[in-house]
Amino acid sequence: MVMPLSLLEKSTDKKVSLLLKDNRVLEGVLIGYDDYLNMVLDNTEETTEDQVKRLGTVILRGNNVVSITPLQ
Amino acid sequence: MVMPLSLLEKSTDKKVSLLLKDNRVLEGVLIGYDDYLNMVLDNTEETTEDQVKRLGTVILRGNNVVSITPLQ
Amino acid sequence: MVMPLSLLEKSTDKKVSLLLKDNRVLEGVLIGYDDYLNMVLDNTEETTEDQVKRLGTVILRGNNVVSITPLQ
Amino acid sequence: MVMPLSLLEKSTDKKVSLLLKDNRVLEGVLIGYDDYLNMVLDNTEETTEDQVKRLGTVILRGNNVVSITPLQ
Amino acid sequence: MVMPLSLLEKSTDKKVSLLLKDNRVLEGVLIGYDDYLNMVLDNTEETTEDQVKRLGTVILRGNNVVSITPLQ
Amino acid sequence: MVMPLSLLEKSTDKKVSLLLKDNRVLEGVLIGYDDYLNMVLDNTEETTEDQVKRLGTVILRGNNVVSITPLQ
Amino acid sequence: MVMPLSLLEKSTDKKVSLLLKDNRVLEGVLIGYDDYLNMVLDNTEETTEDQVKRLGTVILRGNNVVSITPLQ
Repeated sequence: MVMPLSLLEKSTDKKVSLLLKDNRVLEGVLIGYDDYLNMVLDNTEETTEDQVKRLGTVILRGNNVVSITPLQ
Repeated sequence: MVMPLSLLEKSTDKKVSLLLKDNRVLEGVLIGYDDYLNMVLDNTEETTEDQVKRLGTVILRGNNVVSITPLQ
Repeated sequence: MVMPLSLLEKSTDKKVSLLLKDNRVLEGVLIGYDDYLNMVLDNTEETTEDQVKRLGTVILRGNNVVSITPLQ
Repeated sequence: MVMPLSLLEKSTDKKVSLLLKDNRVLEGVLIGYDDYLNMVLDNTEETTEDQVKRLGTVILRGNNVVSITPLQ
Repeated sequence: MVMPLSLLEKSTDKKVSLLLKDNRVLEGVLIGYDDYLNMVLDNTEETTEDQVKRLGTVILRGNNVVSITPLQ
Repeated sequence: MVMPLSLLEKSTDKKVSLLLKDNRVLEGVLIGYDDYLNMVLDNTEETTEDQVKRLGTVILRGNNVVSITPLQ
Repeated sequence: MVMPLSLLEKSTDKKVSLLLKDNRVLEGVLIGYDDYLNMVLDNTEETTEDQVKRLGTVILRGNNVVSITPLQ
């Protein structure tokens, strides 16, 4: 059994992809999170159809997150 | 009587299908969950009309989930 | 006086119809529920205009449910 | 002063009209409710522009209810 | 300093106007409320562009209310 | 460090502008608030493109408020 | 590990960019926040396609915030 928060813990300092409720997709290194699934991403990039936007460090509110995919 | 969380427990390490609020359908092996119905799927696939997208391991926030169907 | 949860208890192992927020209608045998009105249906069928889709056993998150109609 | 829940108590076993968030209007006899304003209606009828649909007994989740009008 | 709930208390048995999330406007005499801003209006009238609908006594769920304007 | 609630306290009896979720903008004198960011405005005016509507005293539910701008 | 709230603490008195649920983007100096991610920005500017609107000091309700990007 892999609890959601323990998978987040194992994904810390690794690259993840986040799908947000507004359909944006962010990729970055997960450097922190809390019990509400608020997260901190580093080296964040938002990939849209035709470009990559570099966002640097971003704090995400958990209730806007649909899913989290560890990439490593 | 089958409590929702105990059916999740029985479905652990088995294949489930999830319907999300944004109408996406994900299939994968349920490898974990918590009391908020946050879930971890492994070997996740998203099936859309004309293709299957392999997503690997995915953490889903419970409040985006509409329904869970055990497939085995 | 018939409390909502006690009517659910009396409806256990009986056929119910659920209306979901996304306007889907599911029918099935209610085999479990919890205090959040999360529910487990068995032999679930989703009836749309022109077809019946058999979904088997389904866990529904309570906050997507609008109303529950006992059918027996 | 008439507290909302005490008016519900006085309306028990009487006919009420419910307006739901999806704009549906249901009329029926209020036979139960709880602190979350989940309600049980009996002899429920949904009136739309051109017809009356008999729904029998219905459990309504409180957070889909906009307003409750005692009719007796 | 006028706390929101103490202004409601002072408005009891007086006429108020409520704006709901679905943009409906109700006027009536506030005869009760609770800590969740659930409210009971008496002699309620809903004014739309071209008509006034008399609704009598109405229980409103607080989380559908945007704003409350005391009219007296 | 200026906590949100302490800025509200300092803004009491002063003019503020509120942006609501439905995009309405209200200006008025903040005469009260509570921990849920429910607020009471006095001498409230709603400015739309071509007119100013005087609303007098208004109680606003906090969960409809997007942002608060002290104007003095 | 960088907890979301500790990154906010480190960003205090520094410039941040906020993305709100209604897609507005605000930039300003973060001068305060609380556990609900309510925030106070100073020297706030809202940048839209063709103009910059100076908003001064603004209190933002946390549940309207999608993401926070420290700019310094």
